[in-house]
Amino acid sequence: MSDNKERKFILGIDLGGSKIAAVIATPRGEILERGLSPTPAQAGPDAVIESICATISELLSIKELEPSQLSGIGIAAAGIVDSANGKVIFSPNLPGWHDVPLIDAVEQRFGISACLGNDANLAALGEWRFGVGKRVDNLIYITVGTGIGGGIIANGKLYTGACGAAGEVGHMTIDVNGPRCNCGKVGCWETLASGTALTREAVKQVTEGVRTSIIELVGGDISKIDAKIVSLAAKQGDTVARELVSRLGYYLGVGLANLVNIFNPELILIGGGVAKIGDSLLQPAITVVKESAFSASANAVEIKPAILGDDSGTLGAVAFVLEHRNIIKQRRKI
Amino acid sequence: MSDNKERKFILGIDLGGSKIAAVIATPRGEILERGLSPTPAQAGPDAVIESICATISELLSIKELEPSQLSGIGIAAAGIVDSANGKVIFSPNLPGWHDVPLIDAVEQRFGISACLGNDANLAALGEWRFGVGKRVDNLIYITVGTGIGGGIIANGKLYTGACGAAGEVGHMTIDVNGPRCNCGKVGCWETLASGTALTREAVKQVTEGVRTSIIELVGGDISKIDAKIVSLAAKQGDTVARELVSRLGYYLGVGLANLVNIFNPELILIGGGVAKIGDSLLQPAITVVKESAFSASANAVEIKPAILGDDSGTLGAVAFVLEHRNIIKQRRKI
Repeated sequence: MSDNKERKFILGIDLGGSKIAAVIATPRGEILERGLSPTPAQAGPDAVIESICATISELLSIKELEPSQLSGIGIAAAGIVDSANGKVIFSPNLPGWHDVPLIDAVEQRFGISACLGNDANLAALGEWRFGVGKRVDNLIYITVGTGIGGGIIANGKLYTGACGAAGEVGHMTIDVNGPRCNCGKVGCWETLASGTALTREAVKQVTEGVRTSIIELVGGDISKIDAKIVSLAAKQGDTVARELVSRLGYYLGVGLANLVNIFNPELILIGGGVAKIGDSLLQPAITVVKESAFSASANAVEIKPAILGDDSGTLGAVAFVLEHRNIIKQRRKI
Repeated sequence: MSDNKERKFILGIDLGGSKIAAVIATPRGEILERGLSPTPAQAGPDAVIESICATISELLSIKELEPSQLSGIGIAAAGIVDSANGKVIFSPNLPGWHDVPLIDAVEQRFGISACLGNDANLAALGEWRFGVGKRVDNLIYITVGTGIGGGIIANGKLYTGACGAAGEVGHMTIDVNGPRCNCGKVGCWETLASGTALTREAVKQVTEGVRTSIIELVGGDISKIDAKIVSLAAKQGDTVARELVSRLGYYLGVGLANLVNIFNPELILIGGGVAKIGDSLLQPAITVVKESAFSASANAVEIKPAILGDDSGTLGAVAFVLEHRNIIKQRRKI
C-alpha cells in the first residue's frame, strides 16, 4: 500500500542552519522515507537550494516516485518567511539569505506546487494535525532550545499574521529591566527561559565558585557547560542544577501565563531540546500558570510535551501542504 | 428610510459597572437612537437584567419598533463571558455575577435571538467593521483606561479562545520583578502602562516633593490626582507631567512590541480614556515598537487611535450580532 504509485504522497523539508531533513509521508502523516543532508550554509543560497533539490530527488528516487505523484512539497525554514510569495526574507542561521525566492526555484525544478512556512509555525501545524494537538481550535506550540520559538493555531487555522512573521513569542519582554536580547529588545522571554539562559546561569554559578557537580561533569572546562550538562546534573541530584532548572521553569511559566491570558488556548505544547528535561522543568512552569493566569483560562488549558520531536519540522511542512493546497492552487493561477 | 419598518435593525448594549448604554443601529453601523441608564450593580443580577430589558423596551418604543423587527440583540459586558452559552462567568464591577445566564433571560423576554461577548473583544470587532479597522485580516484593539483590555481579530475573525476569555493582554507580565497586580500576577502591563499607573507615579512624585503643577491643578488635594489631571499638566507644559506621560508611552510600547512580535498584525488600534492623551503618549510607544520589534512585523503594522470612542461597546455588540447570526441560529436549533 505504501508503494501504491497512484496514491498522492507529500514531501516535507525542514531547512535548518546545519542540516536539511526530508520525509515522504502519506496525507495521514505516516513517514515512508527519511532523508538527511548537511546544509552548505556558508556556500550561500544557491548551494543550499541545490542541496534541497538533491535531497528531494534522492528521496523520490529511493521510493521510485515521479514528482507528479506528489501532491506537493512543503518547506519549513527557520527565520522570517513570506509564505504568500514563497520567499525566505531572513534566516538567522543562513548567511546571505535575504528575500530568497526558494519556492519558485523548487517549483521550477520539479514542476509541482510547493509552499514555505516558518519552522515553528509549521511545527505547531504538524503537532495539531499529526501529533498530540488533537485538532483543538486553539493551540500554542513552543519550542524551547537555544532560543524560544512558537506557532499559533487560532480558530482551527494556522495563524501567521500580516506577513508570515507571527509567533515570535520568544521575543516577548517579560523583564523590562532585564538583559538586552540579540533581537534589540530587553528581557525577552528567551533571554530568561531558554537553553542559553540555563547555560549562562550555570556558568555564573560555577564562576562564582558555588559547589556543584556541573563543573565535574565537564571535566573542569567551563566552556563545555550547556543545557544538557545542567539537566544531567539535576537528574543526578545536584542541588544547584535542580534549582537552576526549577528557576528556568519559573520563567517559562511566566511567559506561558502571558500566552494563556492572551490566547485562552485549549492546549499548549512544549517541544525543543530543552523541553526534554521533562517534568522538573514543566511542573514549575505549569504551577506558575495555574497560580497566576486568569482562572477561566488557566482551567481551560492543558500544557504538555509535544511528541513529534525531530520530525516536527518535516511533518509540519507536510501538514502545511495539506492545509494550503487551495492557496497553492490560487498561486499557480496567478 | 431610518423608520422603514421592513428593515432589520440591530440593538447593541454595552453593560458596564456604572451604566448601561444602548443603541439601535443599521447593519452598516449607523446609529438611529441611543439610550443610557444607570446600572443598579449593587442590587444584583436580577435588577441589572431588569434594567437592561427596560432600556431595550424603551429604545424600541421610541423608534416604534417591535422586537421582531430586530435581527438580534448584542450585549458587550466587562469581564469573563461564555459566548457559546450566553453567560457572564464573572464581572469585576458587577457584584454577585457568577455564571449569570444573561442571554437566556433577554431572549425569553423579547423572543428574538441575542448574543454576548466581552466588551474589549467586541470593541475590536466594532472598530474592525464600522470604525478605523478597515477589515484588515489581523487587528489588535487595546483599550487603555484604569486597566488595559484587548480584543483580537485573527485571520479576519474575532478571536475569543477556548472559553471566550482571550484578549487579556493587560495581564501580560512585562516586568517579572515588578509590582504585584490585582490579578495575582506580577508586573502586568496594566500595572505599568494604564491610567492607574500614571496616577500612581504622579502621586509618588508629588509625595516626594518634586516641583510640578500637578499639585496646583488639584488644589493641593493629592487624592484628586488622576490620569486626566496629569494629562492636563503635561499639555500645559509641566516638565514632570510630560516625563510621566512619556514614560507611560514607553511602557505602552514595550507591551505593544510584544504583541507585534506575537501577532504580526496589520493594525493596532488604541482606545480608552487614557488614549485621549494623544500623540505625547502614542509617539513614544510607537518609537519603542519601531525600534525593538522584529523589523518585518514593525514595518507591517500601523498603530493609531481607535475612533468609535464611547460607542465602541454598543457598536461592537451590533457587529457581533452580524458576525454571529449563524452561531445564534445554531444555538436556537439546539
